[in-house]
Amino acid sequence: MKFQTVRGMKDFLPAEAKKKQAIEDLIRREFEAYGFEPLETPIVEDFALLAAKGSAGEAIKDEIYYFKDKSERELGLRFDLTVPLARVVASNPQLQKPFKRYQFGPVYRYDRPGAKRYRSFTQADADIVGSASVLADFECIALACGAMKKLGLEFFVRVSNKKLLEETALACGVKKERMLDCLRSIDKLDKIGEKGVEEELEEKGISTKILEAIKENNLEKVGKIVKDKKGFNELKELLDYCKEASLEKFVKFDAGLARGLEYYTGNVFEIACAGTSVGAGGRYDNLIQAYGGGATPAVGISFGIDRLLDSLEGKKLEEFGKSKTSLLLISLGEEAAKKTQKIALELRALGLNVETDLMQRNLQKNLEYANKKAIPFVAIIGENELKQGELALKNMQTGKQEKIKLRELEKLKEILEK
Amino acid sequence: MKFQTVRGMKDFLPAEAKKKQAIEDLIRREFEAYGFEPLETPIVEDFALLAAKGSAGEAIKDEIYYFKDKSERELGLRFDLTVPLARVVASNPQLQKPFKRYQFGPVYRYDRPGAKRYRSFTQADADIVGSASVLADFECIALACGAMKKLGLEFFVRVSNKKLLEETALACGVKKERMLDCLRSIDKLDKIGEKGVEEELEEKGISTKILEAIKENNLEKVGKIVKDKKGFNELKELLDYCKEASLEKFVKFDAGLARGLEYYTGNVFEIACAGTSVGAGGRYDNLIQAYGGGATPAVGISFGIDRLLDSLEGKKLEEFGKSKTSLLLISLGEEAAKKTQKIALELRALGLNVETDLMQRNLQKNLEYANKKAIPFVAIIGENELKQGELALKNMQTGKQEKIKLRELEKLKEILEK
Repeated sequence: MKFQTVRGMKDFLPAEAKKKQAIEDLIRREFEAYGFEPLETPIVEDFALLAAKGSAGEAIKDEIYYFKDKSERELGLRFDLTVPLARVVASNPQLQKPFKRYQFGPVYRYDRPGAKRYRSFTQADADIVGSASVLADFECIALACGAMKKLGLEFFVRVSNKKLLEETALACGVKKERMLDCLRSIDKLDKIGEKGVEEELEEKGISTKILEAIKENNLEKVGKIVKDKKGFNELKELLDYCKEASLEKFVKFDAGLARGLEYYTGNVFEIACAGTSVGAGGRYDNLIQAYGGGATPAVGISFGIDRLLDSLEGKKLEEFGKSKTSLLLISLGEEAAKKTQKIALELRALGLNVETDLMQRNLQKNLEYANKKAIPFVAIIGENELKQGELALKNMQTGKQEKIKLRELEKLKEILEK
Repeated sequence: MKFQTVRGMKDFLPAEAKKKQAIEDLIRREFEAYGFEPLETPIVEDFALLAAKGSAGEAIKDEIYYFKDKSERELGLRFDLTVPLARVVASNPQLQKPFKRYQFGPVYRYDRPGAKRYRSFTQADADIVGSASVLADFECIALACGAMKKLGLEFFVRVSNKKLLEETALACGVKKERMLDCLRSIDKLDKIGEKGVEEELEEKGISTKILEAIKENNLEKVGKIVKDKKGFNELKELLDYCKEASLEKFVKFDAGLARGLEYYTGNVFEIACAGTSVGAGGRYDNLIQAYGGGATPAVGISFGIDRLLDSLEGKKLEEFGKSKTSLLLISLGEEAAKKTQKIALELRALGLNVETDLMQRNLQKNLEYANKKAIPFVAIIGENELKQGELALKNMQTGKQEKIKLRELEKLKEILEK
């Protein structure tokens, strides 16, 4: 009997897992550069939390993995990393503000699986809790730009503001009580296009005038028609900071960016890479209060690691896929086999990643293994080498061979690290 | 309404999460030094897999998180990382052997929660699949010793051999058909002591003579009484390798080490640290076949990250708990606030971890924040500094202050990294 992965989930075999991890390491490094610290929360949460006000409510049951434990407690697998963060902040008022935390981990949605659509995927979130300043919004965008540049990906960040979009809608004749309905349709611009959204708005009996403003996409003009300028000013301030930091070429105003999640309250953003969103975020100043905390402003950004992995290409893809092992140590003969383990330990103590032959294969098979695993160097220790107190180092790419004294292993390290 | 974590699960707030991650990083580094590569498998698996022959069977339902999805598929949360590995190897025969993979991740057991007993905990596993050589067993132990030494923990590795223990039991009059029953009792030596095990064996009607052999704990003597020497020879070879690599002082034969899991077939080991097991492993040559793969020898070691975190102390605890942020950049005045973000980006580009003031607090409050977060340096940029093209760097520990030119930020890096 053969077993498979659960429907909608997948394994990452080493060739892919290596790249995924390299992306996560790079993003983690970027989070740390801004002073974010790790938080870890359980993957299983109480259903009451997942269904709580402020997020999707009871209806979420159909969209998540929902189950009961043996004591009939209602549980679910988390669908994002923001709700658990809100829980942690609400129940730990002692946390120093600004609370800058990052978190990596799988989240679960009970969607219909499809090509590159999985029910489990990895998110990497950085959030700043406790600061109402647009500087915090800016930091999320600067961080996104830094990570994307280091990943070697072409990208830009679409930015907008929830309050500004609502004010624009009001100015275009949308009634306050139809606002949510209106924004839900606008959020579909990417999926069903302008024509589709127009039809949907007409069907709902909502004015389609806002589509003109979105199409024109002129921040200054929009700023003039809105009554309450708060959202406009927040966005302007954000764009000013981007300019001051020479990031303006990566950041584009997008009047139609609605960001589905209802909890956003201010600036919102989305990282666009080759036509797909590989990350998104925004300000959500009311969420933590909805989870029982005090009034706490917050803003964050979330990267979709699986989508980044799909986007990776060129030099970075090659670099991330490389073998981390730099040497395969091959012993010939029983005496040498024993000594080899100690030599391997000494090389590892020097900081090198070293494999030894664990299959007791012959030289030819070992060279084939090194080739298949793309290990750049092999070192051979036979009876002869052992007598001379040396090993034969071979560069698998050039074929060049040289003898290295066992008491000069530092020299081997130098060659490998060149 | 306040929400809590699910019963038996916990959050790792940054102070603790930082240390947990430092442990994981260190162990990952050790795995890589031996040429292990990452594998990632889903946390949710088919119940049929979790209950498959070779592990615990249908009865496992009571001990795990079991549930059905919306299509009535029977699922469960994985209880270890070995069963998913067996599934991956069985269904991917193309994988190059030896297949050396590592995996980090949470596993779930539906135990009664208690002090330091959680229903979710993190394991870090390294396994070598495809090698029948005792060299592979040795590598697991060498790796365990390397990691424990680097963690600065006092430890030793208890080693034994499943075949040897069974042969010893046979030699002591235990009948073949009572073997499993016998080993299950012996496995409880740590929990209920010699007296308890003796009583249990007597109750079961099994000879207690084996307890004498275990108490004497003399490998050579045991080697003489057993009929089939295979297990004895495997263990001897393992201990020989340990000696050759100068690791013998960390490795102790323990005749009573049974290692509960029935899937072990050869050498078994356990990392003992301050009276508790912080890791364990062994050879399991039949497991992959039980999951539908070809006959495939395998051996592995698993670290319990949560237990290591509990064991961490002294210098390492301090080092792992340290702030990774080396500088808080404080701006005074609006003009400086704008410039500060760009300076922060430049410093981050130099590889420094830098926070800026996102709360627009005054100088005093900023210094307090740096103190609380244990950030070792602050840099102040006011209108005056801006005019002079410099910043005022302050060492928070010594109080020493100096001016650094904004065009000489490399110099600041040098000071911070001293």
